[in-house]
Amino acid sequence: MITQRLVIGALLFVACPGTLPAADPLPSWNEGSAKRAINSFVSRVTDKGGPDFVAVADRIAVFDNDGTLWCEQPMYVQMTFALDRVKALAGQHPEWKEKQPFKAVLENDLKTVALSGEKGLDELLMAAHAGMTSEEFELIVREWIRTARHPRFQRPYTECVYQPMLELLAYLRANGFKTFIVSGGGIEFMRPWVERVYGIPPEQVIGSSIKLQYEVRDGKPVLMRLPEIDFIDDKAGKPVGIQKFIGRRPLMAFGNSDGDFEMLEWTTASVGPRFGLLVHHTSDAQEYAYDRASLFGRLVRGLDEGPKRGWTIVDMKQEWNVVFPFDKPIK
Amino acid sequence: MITQRLVIGALLFVACPGTLPAADPLPSWNEGSAKRAINSFVSRVTDKGGPDFVAVADRIAVFDNDGTLWCEQPMYVQMTFALDRVKALAGQHPEWKEKQPFKAVLENDLKTVALSGEKGLDELLMAAHAGMTSEEFELIVREWIRTARHPRFQRPYTECVYQPMLELLAYLRANGFKTFIVSGGGIEFMRPWVERVYGIPPEQVIGSSIKLQYEVRDGKPVLMRLPEIDFIDDKAGKPVGIQKFIGRRPLMAFGNSDGDFEMLEWTTASVGPRFGLLVHHTSDAQEYAYDRASLFGRLVRGLDEGPKRGWTIVDMKQEWNVVFPFDKPIK
Repeated sequence: MITQRLVIGALLFVACPGTLPAADPLPSWNEGSAKRAINSFVSRVTDKGGPDFVAVADRIAVFDNDGTLWCEQPMYVQMTFALDRVKALAGQHPEWKEKQPFKAVLENDLKTVALSGEKGLDELLMAAHAGMTSEEFELIVREWIRTARHPRFQRPYTECVYQPMLELLAYLRANGFKTFIVSGGGIEFMRPWVERVYGIPPEQVIGSSIKLQYEVRDGKPVLMRLPEIDFIDDKAGKPVGIQKFIGRRPLMAFGNSDGDFEMLEWTTASVGPRFGLLVHHTSDAQEYAYDRASLFGRLVRGLDEGPKRGWTIVDMKQEWNVVFPFDKPIK
Repeated sequence: MITQRLVIGALLFVACPGTLPAADPLPSWNEGSAKRAINSFVSRVTDKGGPDFVAVADRIAVFDNDGTLWCEQPMYVQMTFALDRVKALAGQHPEWKEKQPFKAVLENDLKTVALSGEKGLDELLMAAHAGMTSEEFELIVREWIRTARHPRFQRPYTECVYQPMLELLAYLRANGFKTFIVSGGGIEFMRPWVERVYGIPPEQVIGSSIKLQYEVRDGKPVLMRLPEIDFIDDKAGKPVGIQKFIGRRPLMAFGNSDGDFEMLEWTTASVGPRFGLLVHHTSDAQEYAYDRASLFGRLVRGLDEGPKRGWTIVDMKQEWNVVFPFDKPIK
């Protein structure tokens, strides 16, 4: 209610004659088809007299994280985190020296790690993510995020986020949208830093999770992280996650890989105005160029079917004039 | 951010000398210890210069639903819904005439239904809640909530809500709190009506759930409701649900039964100012008096240990001057 009233107030203010024209809220987006599509959609659903007006309460926008809000190359950040954790814990697990896929991790043999398949990767993830309380895990994530650096850009991962998407998040919120992350990544791996980096509070993060168990230890309650998958928020799991956590269908969905296909399909198949967008990574010079053959963030079906479904495909090289915040001086 | 600024604005306004004193935001609460405890806690955490000040982003308040926000006697509302659904579906299931616990439901033999135990009740719940899409289920709930009447008060269940708790929800939100429901009831059973009744949006509802499956049927995506439990948001499940959905520990927790014990324990065991409150139903004349021996909303451990833990126990008869909104003329 409070938000609604303020937003209405903000709209009235903008509409008031005599005020200066607002600065472009999306300066990192070139004047191309993607920016036009975004602006046009937001105008339609916020035009109070128009046929496509949508109440503030229903203005839900969902964003994938890896490859949509932050860089997912040369490897998913969370996988780098898991490998670092295994190395940090190796002293307590002498048996890992002889046991795959841990041995390969300790020897930096990423090819063997990859060949260990889903089962092997699950073992690594559980070793890195389970066996501690939720509060202990949060501290581990905070410390890692503070100290780890992207191998190419030599900056914290939380600086390797896409400037045009930060502008988009802020633009949508200024227009009354509630912004959510819907990621295949671990929910507790994102929550400690997303508010600071994206302006999205922890309760608006949906992600994959392991099971938690409530225990009282020496009179103190804790939530133990168990080595068991609870929910995989990827592919057909994304619409399920959206329904579980939000309970209404989004108005806009943003992704970059085939892991986001069903999320965009679910969002845009509804009646009324809906918007789907896929970021297509096309700039090796500024970031990475990848799609159909990529190990991380593979995009095939989205490229083939997206345009027919009315989705906006963002050719990064064409549509963005800057990729990362550090690419340009802060205004 | 928007909310934060408005709330700060509201606080400045209240603090501004020369304005009239604000009307009592909790008129249905008598001037007793519970009201004093609530007011004192809210003042402490919103006092910007004080030692217990809490930023708006961390002002999370969680509320149980059955027996805390709406009436749970003579039977949990959702159980009444499930029995009504079984009766409505009986025509499509001739075998139920001979099969327990369905036979007992159709014969209004509630004692046999109760004796069918957890397994029997699960069968009834699944028959009532699974086997349709999420959108179909929402329509069924909306129609039932619109037409069903409480057997004693002869009003829609959504009118059999506690006026003092409605005031409390509004009071906390006016002080920058984000209010959540954390209920053992079904999440999709609550979402269709909680925004209208409590001012709580669907994405701030945590509850028990069955599994969902994403399917594309004749080109149209749907979420099918499967006859399989996904999550039980009760007892030790409540802190787990809070961590899954909110990702930070609440500042205040409100409940009424031992199903809420762990939620209050988890909330109030943290460092910093925390608040726990249990509604104790003591008024047979106005509503129902029940606690230790009740089939629904049993309260034993909370009465025994709550006061020692610093929780506020609300003796309804003493602390509330009105129970339901229909008990008094609307101002």
